[in-house]
Amino acid sequence: MAHVLGQNQYGKAENRIVRVHREADRHHLKDLNVSVSLRGDFEDVHLTGSNANCLPTDSTKNTVYAFAKRHGIESAEGFAMLLARHFVENTERGVVHSARIRIEEYSWDRIAAASDRPGETADTGHSFVRNGQEVRTTEVEYDGGRFRVVSGLKDLVVMNTTDSEFWGYLKDPYTTLPEAYDRILATQVTARWAFGFAGRDAEDAAPDWNHSYREVRRHLLEAFAQTYSYSLQQTLHAMGTRVLDHRAEVDEVRLELPNKHHFLVDLEPFGLKNENEVYYAADRMYGLIEGTVHREGVTPVIPVS
Amino acid sequence: MAHVLGQNQYGKAENRIVRVHREADRHHLKDLNVSVSLRGDFEDVHLTGSNANCLPTDSTKNTVYAFAKRHGIESAEGFAMLLARHFVENTERGVVHSARIRIEEYSWDRIAAASDRPGETADTGHSFVRNGQEVRTTEVEYDGGRFRVVSGLKDLVVMNTTDSEFWGYLKDPYTTLPEAYDRILATQVTARWAFGFAGRDAEDAAPDWNHSYREVRRHLLEAFAQTYSYSLQQTLHAMGTRVLDHRAEVDEVRLELPNKHHFLVDLEPFGLKNENEVYYAADRMYGLIEGTVHREGVTPVIPVS
Amino acid sequence: MAHVLGQNQYGKAENRIVRVHREADRHHLKDLNVSVSLRGDFEDVHLTGSNANCLPTDSTKNTVYAFAKRHGIESAEGFAMLLARHFVENTERGVVHSARIRIEEYSWDRIAAASDRPGETADTGHSFVRNGQEVRTTEVEYDGGRFRVVSGLKDLVVMNTTDSEFWGYLKDPYTTLPEAYDRILATQVTARWAFGFAGRDAEDAAPDWNHSYREVRRHLLEAFAQTYSYSLQQTLHAMGTRVLDHRAEVDEVRLELPNKHHFLVDLEPFGLKNENEVYYAADRMYGLIEGTVHREGVTPVIPVS
Amino acid sequence: MAHVLGQNQYGKAENRIVRVHREADRHHLKDLNVSVSLRGDFEDVHLTGSNANCLPTDSTKNTVYAFAKRHGIESAEGFAMLLARHFVENTERGVVHSARIRIEEYSWDRIAAASDRPGETADTGHSFVRNGQEVRTTEVEYDGGRFRVVSGLKDLVVMNTTDSEFWGYLKDPYTTLPEAYDRILATQVTARWAFGFAGRDAEDAAPDWNHSYREVRRHLLEAFAQTYSYSLQQTLHAMGTRVLDHRAEVDEVRLELPNKHHFLVDLEPFGLKNENEVYYAADRMYGLIEGTVHREGVTPVIPVS
Repeated sequence: MAHVLGQNQYGKAENRIVRVHREADRHHLKDLNVSVSLRGDFEDVHLTGSNANCLPTDSTKNTVYAFAKRHGIESAEGFAMLLARHFVENTERGVVHSARIRIEEYSWDRIAAASDRPGETADTGHSFVRNGQEVRTTEVEYDGGRFRVVSGLKDLVVMNTTDSEFWGYLKDPYTTLPEAYDRILATQVTARWAFGFAGRDAEDAAPDWNHSYREVRRHLLEAFAQTYSYSLQQTLHAMGTRVLDHRAEVDEVRLELPNKHHFLVDLEPFGLKNENEVYYAADRMYGLIEGTVHREGVTPVIPVS
Repeated sequence: MAHVLGQNQYGKAENRIVRVHREADRHHLKDLNVSVSLRGDFEDVHLTGSNANCLPTDSTKNTVYAFAKRHGIESAEGFAMLLARHFVENTERGVVHSARIRIEEYSWDRIAAASDRPGETADTGHSFVRNGQEVRTTEVEYDGGRFRVVSGLKDLVVMNTTDSEFWGYLKDPYTTLPEAYDRILATQVTARWAFGFAGRDAEDAAPDWNHSYREVRRHLLEAFAQTYSYSLQQTLHAMGTRVLDHRAEVDEVRLELPNKHHFLVDLEPFGLKNENEVYYAADRMYGLIEGTVHREGVTPVIPVS
Repeated sequence: MAHVLGQNQYGKAENRIVRVHREADRHHLKDLNVSVSLRGDFEDVHLTGSNANCLPTDSTKNTVYAFAKRHGIESAEGFAMLLARHFVENTERGVVHSARIRIEEYSWDRIAAASDRPGETADTGHSFVRNGQEVRTTEVEYDGGRFRVVSGLKDLVVMNTTDSEFWGYLKDPYTTLPEAYDRILATQVTARWAFGFAGRDAEDAAPDWNHSYREVRRHLLEAFAQTYSYSLQQTLHAMGTRVLDHRAEVDEVRLELPNKHHFLVDLEPFGLKNENEVYYAADRMYGLIEGTVHREGVTPVIPVS
Repeated sequence: MAHVLGQNQYGKAENRIVRVHREADRHHLKDLNVSVSLRGDFEDVHLTGSNANCLPTDSTKNTVYAFAKRHGIESAEGFAMLLARHFVENTERGVVHSARIRIEEYSWDRIAAASDRPGETADTGHSFVRNGQEVRTTEVEYDGGRFRVVSGLKDLVVMNTTDSEFWGYLKDPYTTLPEAYDRILATQVTARWAFGFAGRDAEDAAPDWNHSYREVRRHLLEAFAQTYSYSLQQTLHAMGTRVLDHRAEVDEVRLELPNKHHFLVDLEPFGLKNENEVYYAADRMYGLIEGTVHREGVTPVIPVS
């Protein structure tokens, strides 16, 4: 029985790039981790050892750095679109049929330092401290016709110290969990959201990607903080819905929320009453809650991981 | 415009379990990391805060440990099938429509120690050393009708110090890579393979999972070692094909092969000639080659990651 | 020839504790990772298998949680002093001669959410987002007489995009590095600083630990930002000196500064001039610069790592 | 009050090097991670910005690669000695007073593949699979007069499924731990051992480093496996003593043994009796047992970490 080469792709992963934009003495910084994947006419490469259709991964890396110089980097999404389109449209003989660019973005704050005027501080123009709160992500695919843009964030860790309950659940023979009427709810948010935008050109009204990111992030945080929760599922749904309610450019939100358990420590043996004050933060095992919320009539595109 | 709850799932992730089987003085060990995901009728949990249909993740954890005692663990695949079927068939009111069990397995070797007879060693019956070579994986899904089993491995690091070339590739304006006629080829193998098996019962002729694993692993290693390579894509294809050629129970193989670059160090400035002897092992960026090989007529099921 | 049991210590490491202080609707949070090490009269435990002098590590863990309830946690340093003193002074038969408590502290910011008044935000009282900028550390040792307190931070990542040069260095036969007159200087700061304070009691004038931490951190950042640098060594020295100049409670500062290399990418092959705009951020290898600055007459206590 | 520059050192860390020795068709492999630290006359570098005494870290990196070519790598220890001596004796104007070389070594096994003769396998000469069992370490210091060599290993994970008890311990008011008469004992061994050897030259009778490593490792494993244990401290002592008893070249052994807790899962609620068969493998917190065993009359040199 014959064998078939199925889906395949390749490229250079994790190109770490820092792009400095110098506006006189005031510098601006983009710090990205860019991964390229190309799909196309690569059967010979796999089957015959002929590399005639194989653009080296090293060339895709060079392209990332050259484009950063030539075009600057206004947003991760915009930069990814430029790259994806280039590989599909400019690679010889049309061997690249579609391209996927994934980017992680690390953000930096300016360092404020004491200024000449006593009691005041000023930022320093070219000094930065890494803001470790979360990693911004995007994934752009282009097939020669349309773009698919899915942005997101990961490693955003949040906690509510109250306003969370969990009771009234289904009880099977393996259920021993006591009901909880006031518990800590903590999670490490991984979120991805898909944009309706699919156009090829600037005039196709791409959203302001950076503004959109800040606003989606804000709504996720606010929904987490303001939802009185009876389950992490309910909180997840509230977070996704809040984004769709406020951001017209987003069609679909997928969230992966590990339940970072904080167990109340039993202090009775030591004659102490633990009134929801002292918790043990556990590593593993953990509940893992995942779900998608999307607009009616839209076909979800974000894969289950 | 209304919002819709799309795909969702939940369960307890990363249940770390060690199961000791005591055969008189000789102990046997299974060391697993088990993750449970349930899909089903959970709309109310997300939308109304009612947990009536929500089996706690804690109960799914308890089930993992109780099943390990009651049924023992012969193989990760067999254990995952038992669990998946249980959640779908035994959860009240049929609220669980399908279940996915993912398992990582860590293997241990027996420690050989000096025996009473001089110059000889014997294993010690109950003493083990972790074999850190790779992690064995499996993912089992069950929807009440059929099983889907995808097994695999990850973190298997291999290297050929010769018999690898890369030249004759497509050159675009960003290509600066010199051609290579003798290079190191090294990669960290992530492999997944899908089984044709789908039956519910023992008589449905499940393969011997442990034997199958050992053989697939052997063929992957042999194909890597014995392929004279003109690209990592070609090696990938040879590895997948070799498995399909030798293991009838496998229908599809997907490989993710980062090209762990080893760059020849330029020693000319120090009056030395580097005859493929001294390499710098780089971390990032790296080429990433991914692909599927499957039997003709079979629909691939392993998702692109 | 006889063998001797030398330095030994034991305890429970990495007790993860979250302590919530509830001030009506406004909650306060301490998130710590506490490690206990006890030294003392443990020879029998090692040599004879008698555990009569062995306080279980589990008991030391319980003590951490019970003390968090009973005494609250005002600062990591203060909490560590309480614990260290307890183990030495209260363990039966004086078997514990000295105790070392290490703490990592993770900080959280309040989530600001839209308030009822349009256009305004308010914090939410009990909702927090992890501030991932750095980890605060402390190590306290107590031997029944005096305390030794060494505080610090790690994973504080900083970058200057200009005002850094490196030239005029010693050239040996293995030197090929081109001189640099405008380079990126980036590092991931690990800092430890020792306090003069050694007293046992509150009246011994312990510094305000939290205030001290904020100020030391501020001076480290300012010195990094404001030093025009001819080497990372010079920057290190400026950072340590700045702290000693401004914080009388600190006697010694030790810094470990990996030089996170950002290499200028050669874009000439693509007809582009890289005017200090596009950098490749490398992982390994890296320069590693370490050094201590201390007050004259003080004997340094922070070990070389 | 003046400030003083105290202990300081610098160099290139984590130089990843793969050295291939080609013996006709049969290749041999050394895979190392080499870190260089130089101490010496570097006050001006820190204080004045003059780099006249600063050998660039980049030059130390080049030296590592050039020496690997020129001298080959027979053992990590031997290679480290060559490098340390070079930096102290050959750097201009004697600015380097002492050098410390740290090396991690990753080991590889040959891949055995099916040979032409049916049913037989043969190794492939140039194909390797990473042996992930542990990392071998060494640290060599040279001050112009004598060497200090401390070798070791880390990440060696071992488990006894029986022959371990823990009871009769000291009970304080925070003790709730039940006594255990048959428990799992598992740990991740970090070991360092110091050699008596200090000579400068080959004729000074350096041990056979590779043979010594294999034997020390074997004795550590055997002692772990064969010790009926009443505490991890007792096991630690047995491991250190066993090495000193059998390896004359070793003067001192220090072990750091995290107690990787495996908790017996309570299955009573499910009508099951857990007869030491089903365990939960916990991540954190963990007991941490550390200690040194050394020959009488020898001054220990391995620092407490």
